[in-house]
Amino acid sequence: MKYTEMSREALQAEQKACQQRFEELKAKGLKLDMSRDKPGREQLDLVSDILTVLQTPDDCIADGMDTRNYGGLEGLPSARAYFADVLGCRAEECFVGGSASLTLMYDTISKAYTHGLLHSEKPWAKLDHVKFLCPAPGYDRHFRITESFGAELITVEMTPDGPDMDQVEDLVKDPEVKGIWCVPKYSNPDGIVYSEETVKRFAKLHPAAPDFVIMWDNAYCVHEFEGDFLPFPDIISLCREAGNPDMVFEYASTSKITFPGAGISVMASSEANIKYMTKLMGVQMISYDKVNQRRHVMYLKNKEGTLALMKKHAAILGPKFRMVLDTLEREIAPLDIASWQRPRGGYFVSVNTMDGIAKRTLALCKEAGVVMTSAGATFPYGKDPRDRNIRVAPSLPPVEELRQAMEVFCVSLRIAAIEKLLAE
Amino acid sequence: MKYTEMSREALQAEQKACQQRFEELKAKGLKLDMSRDKPGREQLDLVSDILTVLQTPDDCIADGMDTRNYGGLEGLPSARAYFADVLGCRAEECFVGGSASLTLMYDTISKAYTHGLLHSEKPWAKLDHVKFLCPAPGYDRHFRITESFGAELITVEMTPDGPDMDQVEDLVKDPEVKGIWCVPKYSNPDGIVYSEETVKRFAKLHPAAPDFVIMWDNAYCVHEFEGDFLPFPDIISLCREAGNPDMVFEYASTSKITFPGAGISVMASSEANIKYMTKLMGVQMISYDKVNQRRHVMYLKNKEGTLALMKKHAAILGPKFRMVLDTLEREIAPLDIASWQRPRGGYFVSVNTMDGIAKRTLALCKEAGVVMTSAGATFPYGKDPRDRNIRVAPSLPPVEELRQAMEVFCVSLRIAAIEKLLAE
Repeated sequence: MKYTEMSREALQAEQKACQQRFEELKAKGLKLDMSRDKPGREQLDLVSDILTVLQTPDDCIADGMDTRNYGGLEGLPSARAYFADVLGCRAEECFVGGSASLTLMYDTISKAYTHGLLHSEKPWAKLDHVKFLCPAPGYDRHFRITESFGAELITVEMTPDGPDMDQVEDLVKDPEVKGIWCVPKYSNPDGIVYSEETVKRFAKLHPAAPDFVIMWDNAYCVHEFEGDFLPFPDIISLCREAGNPDMVFEYASTSKITFPGAGISVMASSEANIKYMTKLMGVQMISYDKVNQRRHVMYLKNKEGTLALMKKHAAILGPKFRMVLDTLEREIAPLDIASWQRPRGGYFVSVNTMDGIAKRTLALCKEAGVVMTSAGATFPYGKDPRDRNIRVAPSLPPVEELRQAMEVFCVSLRIAAIEKLLAE
Repeated sequence: MKYTEMSREALQAEQKACQQRFEELKAKGLKLDMSRDKPGREQLDLVSDILTVLQTPDDCIADGMDTRNYGGLEGLPSARAYFADVLGCRAEECFVGGSASLTLMYDTISKAYTHGLLHSEKPWAKLDHVKFLCPAPGYDRHFRITESFGAELITVEMTPDGPDMDQVEDLVKDPEVKGIWCVPKYSNPDGIVYSEETVKRFAKLHPAAPDFVIMWDNAYCVHEFEGDFLPFPDIISLCREAGNPDMVFEYASTSKITFPGAGISVMASSEANIKYMTKLMGVQMISYDKVNQRRHVMYLKNKEGTLALMKKHAAILGPKFRMVLDTLEREIAPLDIASWQRPRGGYFVSVNTMDGIAKRTLALCKEAGVVMTSAGATFPYGKDPRDRNIRVAPSLPPVEELRQAMEVFCVSLRIAAIEKLLAE
């Protein structure tokens, strides 16, 4: 029965029952972490063969270069071709980096501030004010990059089709608005896949700023945990066709394909942008780790090889996500105190509670030994204006621990909702 | 006989002989590259065992963490301890990075501009003017980093004991002078080892800028190609003892120990600086490649293991440097048209010709198929005010090719010197 339709007495009885259950769970002394999208050991062990795929010096010679030596700033040609295959763009549009795509994103924003982007009139550090659009809930680390450079973060609403494009199209008329953060497939944290319409509207944007940049973090481009691979459009072609060839930078990595701490990453954009950025990156380094790029190409081979591996990851992740989603459906859905998407990929489940009880729910979880991402983390400046979004990251704990953690979560959410309703 | 003491007629005869030899060499159609400090394949093959040192998932577990997964931004504890052993500092003073120490240097300067250093009153990007000291001849990539951010580069003279410290002590009285580039052991390109006195004067500097930074690139700290390992002082302790604990950042890497393109690097400084920088780096990445850090620690083990490996590199590099130095001594020394140091380590020989003939010498070399680092590259803005410094990088070509290249170099230098003398 819906909590909102319950009598005060019924709610009080429910509260008593929940509190009793909460005390029982607390007594178990749990210590469970669902705060970050960390793959579990079983996933890491899937790819152990990559450790020994390079055995001899000759294995390190590829594409006419010795991957062990200096050179090849844009990345090993076969690694550029690999990412082009995965993303559906061209090899010349790919700059292959080190273990973190986040670093490539940071570098893009950092260089916009210190040197300017290709179409910047001046470096952003020389401007009075810079604004950056942050569809929220979104990825805290994205927001923090632009925040750290002093940009004003503007929240954009998320819809089940992606960011609210009416709002985006309106906001980009302001020349101080310099860019937007996007996770187009299985968005962090909602797991929303941007609709075809949304993606097209992005490609056709008419921003006032000539150096407006779409930061297209395709972090979960091949990361289905349920069902078949879902094809996605090539944003770089779409922008080119719409007459905005240099407006988008796309990012991806193998962090959740091979090793989170030791994968390879890519920054993809128009050839003009890649040429411009490569020139700037040339001041900062001679090349990224091409031996590890070679290791990845030999091990993953291509998109097909990657999708086959992702099926194995899905076999591990699927049951974990189903545990979370099924528990929510069974325990919370009938009460009408929260809503969520049912993603088929990505690394999160995002729960929107009744307004004003996310923090309280997470405090109760913590009291009972279950750590989640801090409330508010998914919003600019870490402040959720409605205090309702909770990001659940089920990848690390084993299914049995998840069962316990979800029990703690559900009873905490119920208690917080009842407290709120009784106080009204 | 010294060219300067020769009669005009004798010089003309010498010119004719040199030109004839030059034409003979040119006719060979050589194609030799001595432009960069790139190790040769024989050196890379020395360390092939590092490719397979990690075999199983358990090999990736170290210091209580799974190196394959996220986390450990400051670096794997055993990798921090490894670099502390090599540099003679403390593990807590080491931040271990990816394949390029140059990137860590760039990050330091970049963050000084965008966020400020620990003792900055404001980010350097907000200042009207920033000056940076560049002992020259020096490393072109250092100079380019500060140039790319718009700093004014001030040339400091090099002496056989390191940078001219009278000049440095005087220049740092200017609060706009924010730092200095240093390669304290086997300086790039002269191969000069800073004297004890020079190092102590650095530690005791009294700069007017509270955020003055010594960029101490200890690139060749264990890189003897001749004779025994030469111990070096720990600049971090010295600065601490002199009451300047946060004034120095030291850098090193395994680029010329294991693989140039796939090694690990370190930024070492006071704990306060490392803490401050780690906080800023946390916006930019989750961690560097700890699997590769683990690989390096397992393979190199410690300073002792590293020094043993460096002896093997020396066995390959020694004959190459001796070929260069012995040829210079035999062919050029008697003529009194150039001077050079005789380094026992590092990756370069730096030849100072008579004023005004470096460019012409290198143009002749190129005509005969020998590419060297461009003239001027070792000075700020790529401009050698006396047009006399030539950097020779003998590491890549085999000894027999070096013999030919040095023959071309010596005859080119002789021709250029004679032309100059005849024109006077």
